Amino acid sequence: MVRPRVLVVAGTHGNEINGPWLLDQWRQYPALIDSEGLNVQLAIGNPAACAKGRRYLDRDLNRSFHPDLHKEASESAAESDREMVQALELLKQFGPKGQTPCDLVVDLHSTTSAMGNCLVVYGRRPVDLALAALVQHRLGLPIYLHEADAAQQGFLAERWPCGLVIEVGPVPQNVRRSDIVLQTRLALEAVLAAITSVRDGSARYPDQVVIHLHLGSLDVPRRSSGDSDALVHPNLQGRDWQPLKAGDPLFIDAESNTVVFDGEDGLVPVFINEAAYAEKAIALSLTKRETWPLPKDWKEALAELLR
Amino acid sequence: MVRPRVLVVAGTHGNEINGPWLLDQWRQYPALIDSEGLNVQLAIGNPAACAKGRRYLDRDLNRSFHPDLHKEASESAAESDREMVQALELLKQFGPKGQTPCDLVVDLHSTTSAMGNCLVVYGRRPVDLALAALVQHRLGLPIYLHEADAAQQGFLAERWPCGLVIEVGPVPQNVRRSDIVLQTRLALEAVLAAITSVRDGSARYPDQVVIHLHLGSLDVPRRSSGDSDALVHPNLQGRDWQPLKAGDPLFIDAESNTVVFDGEDGLVPVFINEAAYAEKAIALSLTKRETWPLPKDWKEALAELLR
Repeated sequence: MVRPRVLVVAGTHGNEINGPWLLDQWRQYPALIDSEGLNVQLAIGNPAACAKGRRYLDRDLNRSFHPDLHKEASESAAESDREMVQALELLKQFGPKGQTPCDLVVDLHSTTSAMGNCLVVYGRRPVDLALAALVQHRLGLPIYLHEADAAQQGFLAERWPCGLVIEVGPVPQNVRRSDIVLQTRLALEAVLAAITSVRDGSARYPDQVVIHLHLGSLDVPRRSSGDSDALVHPNLQGRDWQPLKAGDPLFIDAESNTVVFDGEDGLVPVFINEAAYAEKAIALSLTKRETWPLPKDWKEALAELLR
Repeated sequence: MVRPRVLVVAGTHGNEINGPWLLDQWRQYPALIDSEGLNVQLAIGNPAACAKGRRYLDRDLNRSFHPDLHKEASESAAESDREMVQALELLKQFGPKGQTPCDLVVDLHSTTSAMGNCLVVYGRRPVDLALAALVQHRLGLPIYLHEADAAQQGFLAERWPCGLVIEVGPVPQNVRRSDIVLQTRLALEAVLAAITSVRDGSARYPDQVVIHLHLGSLDVPRRSSGDSDALVHPNLQGRDWQPLKAGDPLFIDAESNTVVFDGEDGLVPVFINEAAYAEKAIALSLTKRETWPLPKDWKEALAELLR
């Protein structure tokens, strides 16, 4: 068995259709993406949701990987929760103790926000951060570090020893665009090349990595009924990754009254006006941009995993 | 009873959420839009689909207004077809023979295509064309005339004596943007002002109207399985309303092979890469731009309707 095994997942959300098309084309034309001699497994995360063009059927698959949920699920039939069943199925097939155990997962997503081409990591696992730093060094992609958010847990990538999300936008749900597919492919190729470079000892790590630390999220103003009473301000729309300063407009209502940012200067907004986050009461998330040195033990941890 | 009664519908497609927000805000703040003294009725076209953020539940509501369909539906319970029931309900409430009979309907839509702010009319009813010409003269909006397409029939606007669609984009499904809401509002205000101008005799008609006649639609290349084997070419994406010439690229596959346009020079593409049309096997539609004089009987027909 060739190690490491790399799992590439697309269609974890059934209305993000650029990643699945890339994998479909890769299956049709194996020369399309250089797998660098790695053992790569391809999977559609949520085929049933993809068939219907919906993010999910019963619950968000990418919030269904928390181990506690699975303890409950395995005790009941969980037939009414198709995503829980599918999460367990993916783990059974490709999880670290699955039939075809994979060491890393790359999960391909798209967003209606103007996030460009970026990486999302969950928590501060040294292997994730080391791999993300290598990809950032290669392509310059920004890194969003999601952590410590009690309302948002159970991400797919967390259940493999190493896992990254490639997030590309803006693109509407259920729309394929050649530029989005191309960006997804570039990021995926960079991840595969980075893995290979660690294995053959040619990895060139940067001295430091730029991280956007998740601090929290803001919702649009709502009236007592729960209905939205304002929209993302046009000056903010599309300005993901651009630092805010106090007084910058965030929201605007139908009569042109604005709500302004009153937080710390320099915080960086991400996932501005992502379609799927409205139901999570998120109009944007706020992050803090930090530059971290790259400790030796991160690199060693990744080398150890990929040995 | 004040005539004419104008029905404004939004949310005919449940994932087009800008129009419904505008109507919600208008209900909250009646001064938001000047109704010009008209008797305006507001309706959400497909509340059940809106609640789920889906275009429709069982079938496209905006293809469910063909009289033949309703003959069938009234003979069966049609419980498994919620949109058919809803179409009949809208007609019962606001149709020309309904409880609150309306003379005109304005149906607010949005699209993932870069259609800007435009009007769609169905067929060549003089009243529709006269009203569209007045709005075009006021705001310069392009007009798409949809007709003679056996695969696409049963539009809501066709069942009222006069009916227009306001179509605004690009905006992803299930995303609200203040620019899209503003454009929708401007077009709606222009329609209301045009109606008022006909009633009070101040209507200023242009000498001619520019129409984009629907000729047909193109699908992306597919392999025998039915799966898409190419994407809209980046040079075409976002170029709605810009005339094509022979040799212009239409589609591109994963290996960068292109399919080019081999039709008549000057045809105008619309609805390029609209998310909801993939299931209808439409990657774009082709139109012919024509300039028509405005016959006197169109104006008379509209004046008669609005008397």
